[in-house]
Amino acid sequence: MAIEGRSETHEGRIRLGMVGGGQGAFIGAVHRIAARLDDRYTLVAGALSSDPERAKASGLELGLAENRCYGSYEEMARREARLKDGIEAVAIVTPNHMHFPVAQAFLKRGIHVICDKPLTTTLRDAKRLAALVEQSGKVFALTHNYTGYPMIRQARAMIADGELGELRLVQAEYVQDWLSQEVHNKQADWRTDPARSGAGGCVGDIGTHAYNLACFVTGMQAESLAADLTTFVEGRKLDDNVAVLLRYASGAKGMLWASQVAVGNENALTLRVYGTKGGLEWDQEHPNVLWFTPHGEPKRMITRNGAGAGPEAGRMSRIPSGHPEGYLEGFANIYSEAARAIVAARNNEAPDPDVIYPTVEDGVRGVAFIEACVRSSGRNAGWVKL
Amino acid sequence: MAIEGRSETHEGRIRLGMVGGGQGAFIGAVHRIAARLDDRYTLVAGALSSDPERAKASGLELGLAENRCYGSYEEMARREARLKDGIEAVAIVTPNHMHFPVAQAFLKRGIHVICDKPLTTTLRDAKRLAALVEQSGKVFALTHNYTGYPMIRQARAMIADGELGELRLVQAEYVQDWLSQEVHNKQADWRTDPARSGAGGCVGDIGTHAYNLACFVTGMQAESLAADLTTFVEGRKLDDNVAVLLRYASGAKGMLWASQVAVGNENALTLRVYGTKGGLEWDQEHPNVLWFTPHGEPKRMITRNGAGAGPEAGRMSRIPSGHPEGYLEGFANIYSEAARAIVAARNNEAPDPDVIYPTVEDGVRGVAFIEACVRSSGRNAGWVKL
Amino acid sequence: MAIEGRSETHEGRIRLGMVGGGQGAFIGAVHRIAARLDDRYTLVAGALSSDPERAKASGLELGLAENRCYGSYEEMARREARLKDGIEAVAIVTPNHMHFPVAQAFLKRGIHVICDKPLTTTLRDAKRLAALVEQSGKVFALTHNYTGYPMIRQARAMIADGELGELRLVQAEYVQDWLSQEVHNKQADWRTDPARSGAGGCVGDIGTHAYNLACFVTGMQAESLAADLTTFVEGRKLDDNVAVLLRYASGAKGMLWASQVAVGNENALTLRVYGTKGGLEWDQEHPNVLWFTPHGEPKRMITRNGAGAGPEAGRMSRIPSGHPEGYLEGFANIYSEAARAIVAARNNEAPDPDVIYPTVEDGVRGVAFIEACVRSSGRNAGWVKL
Amino acid sequence: MAIEGRSETHEGRIRLGMVGGGQGAFIGAVHRIAARLDDRYTLVAGALSSDPERAKASGLELGLAENRCYGSYEEMARREARLKDGIEAVAIVTPNHMHFPVAQAFLKRGIHVICDKPLTTTLRDAKRLAALVEQSGKVFALTHNYTGYPMIRQARAMIADGELGELRLVQAEYVQDWLSQEVHNKQADWRTDPARSGAGGCVGDIGTHAYNLACFVTGMQAESLAADLTTFVEGRKLDDNVAVLLRYASGAKGMLWASQVAVGNENALTLRVYGTKGGLEWDQEHPNVLWFTPHGEPKRMITRNGAGAGPEAGRMSRIPSGHPEGYLEGFANIYSEAARAIVAARNNEAPDPDVIYPTVEDGVRGVAFIEACVRSSGRNAGWVKL
Repeated sequence: MAIEGRSETHEGRIRLGMVGGGQGAFIGAVHRIAARLDDRYTLVAGALSSDPERAKASGLELGLAENRCYGSYEEMARREARLKDGIEAVAIVTPNHMHFPVAQAFLKRGIHVICDKPLTTTLRDAKRLAALVEQSGKVFALTHNYTGYPMIRQARAMIADGELGELRLVQAEYVQDWLSQEVHNKQADWRTDPARSGAGGCVGDIGTHAYNLACFVTGMQAESLAADLTTFVEGRKLDDNVAVLLRYASGAKGMLWASQVAVGNENALTLRVYGTKGGLEWDQEHPNVLWFTPHGEPKRMITRNGAGAGPEAGRMSRIPSGHPEGYLEGFANIYSEAARAIVAARNNEAPDPDVIYPTVEDGVRGVAFIEACVRSSGRNAGWVKL
Repeated sequence: MAIEGRSETHEGRIRLGMVGGGQGAFIGAVHRIAARLDDRYTLVAGALSSDPERAKASGLELGLAENRCYGSYEEMARREARLKDGIEAVAIVTPNHMHFPVAQAFLKRGIHVICDKPLTTTLRDAKRLAALVEQSGKVFALTHNYTGYPMIRQARAMIADGELGELRLVQAEYVQDWLSQEVHNKQADWRTDPARSGAGGCVGDIGTHAYNLACFVTGMQAESLAADLTTFVEGRKLDDNVAVLLRYASGAKGMLWASQVAVGNENALTLRVYGTKGGLEWDQEHPNVLWFTPHGEPKRMITRNGAGAGPEAGRMSRIPSGHPEGYLEGFANIYSEAARAIVAARNNEAPDPDVIYPTVEDGVRGVAFIEACVRSSGRNAGWVKL
Repeated sequence: MAIEGRSETHEGRIRLGMVGGGQGAFIGAVHRIAARLDDRYTLVAGALSSDPERAKASGLELGLAENRCYGSYEEMARREARLKDGIEAVAIVTPNHMHFPVAQAFLKRGIHVICDKPLTTTLRDAKRLAALVEQSGKVFALTHNYTGYPMIRQARAMIADGELGELRLVQAEYVQDWLSQEVHNKQADWRTDPARSGAGGCVGDIGTHAYNLACFVTGMQAESLAADLTTFVEGRKLDDNVAVLLRYASGAKGMLWASQVAVGNENALTLRVYGTKGGLEWDQEHPNVLWFTPHGEPKRMITRNGAGAGPEAGRMSRIPSGHPEGYLEGFANIYSEAARAIVAARNNEAPDPDVIYPTVEDGVRGVAFIEACVRSSGRNAGWVKL
Repeated sequence: MAIEGRSETHEGRIRLGMVGGGQGAFIGAVHRIAARLDDRYTLVAGALSSDPERAKASGLELGLAENRCYGSYEEMARREARLKDGIEAVAIVTPNHMHFPVAQAFLKRGIHVICDKPLTTTLRDAKRLAALVEQSGKVFALTHNYTGYPMIRQARAMIADGELGELRLVQAEYVQDWLSQEVHNKQADWRTDPARSGAGGCVGDIGTHAYNLACFVTGMQAESLAADLTTFVEGRKLDDNVAVLLRYASGAKGMLWASQVAVGNENALTLRVYGTKGGLEWDQEHPNVLWFTPHGEPKRMITRNGAGAGPEAGRMSRIPSGHPEGYLEGFANIYSEAARAIVAARNNEAPDPDVIYPTVEDGVRGVAFIEACVRSSGRNAGWVKL
């Protein structure tokens, strides 16, 4: 164990705006902490709510200047683009249906985007957004935050290095219980409303995270899938449980289970990958550990920044092994990777090749996954190409 | 914690014979320990190998009288049936394809049968055997041994008592890694040979255990399934990985994963059941514990013979909580339950209603499951009725 | 994973008698299962209770011949010694104060002894018994059963092989909660009665187990100790909690904590050993696993009969890794090791050098430990030589 | 699970300075993240190294204005005290021997202090510092950061509420392995140097954390102790392992083990507390969980912000249960509690009664603990009053 901190270097903090994330929101506060943690951003503007009163109150509470608390994202985009010290990047933390228009508004004005997932509510919008990003040349980071966990980076590096041999099995789960019964609150309401959430409920909210994680770690995309979506809670308009079989081009197979009604599970995102030469197992609720079994040898506990962990994990860590980092640090890693890309862009440089964050392309794949699941489920879990 | 032993009561040990289980076998030795553990059986005869030399040598090594070491099961069945102190029950521990003929030979002669799983290699044979058992009026116990674990009994009782409410999700896994590569030995050879194993490889060897366990605990049978079987190791004739989606009549859904190529898993049989009111989680490698989460309350660790465990678990336990019981004790519980049924039969009585062991009907369901999985997989994982 | 059974070979089962262990007893039933498990003993005689009625009833219930159900151990010793097929060995499972006289009675008549721990209630008796054993030339096995766990054998072998380097720290705990409040039953009563239990309560009942385990695994004996004994439950005559500091001749240090009042602990016997080159950690409630960390490398999970486990563990195992063995199997290992020594003695041979079971000398050390703890505690936890 | 964020309210960020924590330091970076996380502080000045060159380079790297990068803490104290927008609080993150003079310099000038532990290198200094704090009327927070973990607050509240009944046993451990061999680097060097670290090595660096945590959670202070300190690594000047027996006025007993040479332990701080009515167990490496066993009931897993957790834990949490918070969030909680006290002081108000952070008095007790351990160990682990 080396107990030495990661150094914080500054090349001028990035001026950040936020759309969504006002009082009573969950993920907005998470984004703000993530932006703050490594001191690479300063939040200077916000359209924090679609209700102008609440937007302003929320902004003042966060210490924003009054004239940069906007009542609408359009106004914010317009005005910030014209300011000399206007925002360089915007974080979009609204319900899903607003991701597309908001991202479009800022990209068009040359502002980098950090956007919550899933990318959009339709695959058509997702592809349009990808095209917009391409045209804009701007940084677009999608907060599939679980890819920011150091041991996920470790797993990805090990697989890329061939330590598992040829991959055979990819088992992903994301299981919660907070929607086990009928629930009404700000968080639950939009997530179970097709107009704001899109065609996927559970599959969109957390299934995409699991699928993204599986792809990120293995470096593979599934070729086809068969999905069985269920709505267990009466009256709910979207699925609250999804079971998926997956096939990869290489011949690898996968299963994916996401649920919001499995009583006793808080946020049980797990990934298990098996190849000809070894197996890896990871659990988001114990994120500082990666279990690795080389074929025919004892299982090994690789710890973040500890023995057995490589530079890909170390680079994402702030403190020594045994000092747990968690969800917020993993989320902050996405922000910090995006910051490196934004600063490179500011300097008209390409980012370092080791800068990794989920992109708009990952977002397109995620929406394609949601739509494929919904389509397959509509055909009695028949196979659907991805 | 009460530290008091379960009392051993005898009404005369049951005279037991064994077919299969000679030198080099695995499961035969397990059955013998299971029979011995609670002192309810005496092994007095055997046809321990299909090779007469080895059969005799194996029998003598086990302390059998020379004249009760048989060279064939037919001879053993014939002769033991005529002896005044001939065997009352036979344990069948051969490869799968011999279960049917051996069981038939002994049942016809009025000898109770304890048989390893899966019941037979075809559903047709399974049904014929069920009919034979019915006609014979004899005890037929199938060693789906995992149903003998005390905490599995506890789970079953809790679900029957409604502690989980209406069931929604049944997630079963049975994952190993011992066939990750090409392997040749006595155990591997017959398990990967369709002639001896039947149409299912992994699905027959361990998938049935997982399915049986799910049914035993929930009290439900699946109505239909979609299965994707894979053979990962080149040249292998049977599946070594199986992914199944399941639907129950009640509307409950399930997933089942069985694998013999998931590196880093030794014998990872797990069961998770979720209902409207709570969730249960159990892991065979830590069998003395059952995790129970009532909706909205903290997860609870119920331990065998400990606080929170009921009489169904206590009855299956020998020693206080904290003193781990394991695989052999669970297996012995099946033998001891069967013994209670056999002794009742000896006395022309019905067994106590609390006597529970897997029956020939469970065996028929298991073979139906195997055949359904193979059929579904042949139809590109299309849905198949069970 | 090799799934092959340990072979059961017989050279004629050992005729075993038992003193103590009648109806309502705990440890007697455990000894009987342990004797039976590997089929090396036949229980043929017993003086199962000091109450002759209960002794007889208990014996008949266990299937003993009526004329070998004795009303007293003296009668049993006398008569069995004269029978042609009298017992070859006796298992002593009485409260502590009877170990000495019973062992003496049988040893004097040339009968091997398997005796529960602690050896005696006083160090003086312990030493006299050791002398008697020496004179008799008979096998004397003390059931410090935890030394029978395969992964404990593994740990011992690894330390003997130098895999931990020079030992520095030995941390042992044995923690229960069943005496957290005033309890009255057969088990609790004698354990808290100095007349039957000796000068140590918790320290004698379970502290000795922890100390014995530490010595067995490390191959070291402590040189001195400082102990603080406490009786938390009012009215109890013996300690129910003990904290000990230990010093070894080599310069290694140790701590030992035993308690019967730590609510939430069932039978939490753990051992952690650290040396210059590595560390080992083991927990009786998860006995199939040994955690090994070589300095500067990831922690490794060594499993019984799995990858990384050596022949010392394999020899003590019956079934493949992933199929949990437990307390009874570990206990049976002591019986089976003693059986090998007894059969060797029967054949006038020395036992194989790899036969290992706790001896009367270990018993003397255990009683010395108890007395030293009591003495130290009486001197305000001052240091006492062992 | 409620997925709603803790709201961030601002009453103007606190202007913070830092002494120590320049390039290559560990704990300085941790303090900066902790200060930033909840957005209650702005770092505006620093004397980040005793080497003026490095101090300046470090400050610029962190984005400090050049004229507020000081070459010495005295200069910084003098000048900042005179600035209109000078620092309101200083974070002291130097080696131990500098805590006293630096704290003194800032307190004298009316600047609040947040200081790393242990308080000072001598008990005499500790008491002088406590007197200075009292005179100054300023906030003094000692970063015994582990008291900031939400589940530690939960444990403290449960004990205060009597859920454990009368306390009997307090078992604390803080075990690492990073000094198992001779190590030379910035972190190791000063920690093993009596001139900078004080009389305690391991006991001062981590033993005090364990002792502080035990006191914080139980609400009790030990009355006397017996300690055995050891230096295992040759040539090291301070202890690297400490074993302590503790006695509390109430009759409760405790054990404490701290080590830096236990191979396989990264940062294993654990606390177990047992009372007449229940037991609590917590492990810093899995900080989001608190295990609670009410006497005679199953063990329960209480999770941060999950079912069973109360407002004391919820108030310290940012995100829903299942989303792990870690070391940095716990550390930040200390900073945020101190911020509430500082803002209250700014407004000439008393802080809310629920504001809790380790104080200078806790620091005095910690140094008294270190000195008592060293004294006891010098007397062959004889008992010493605290």
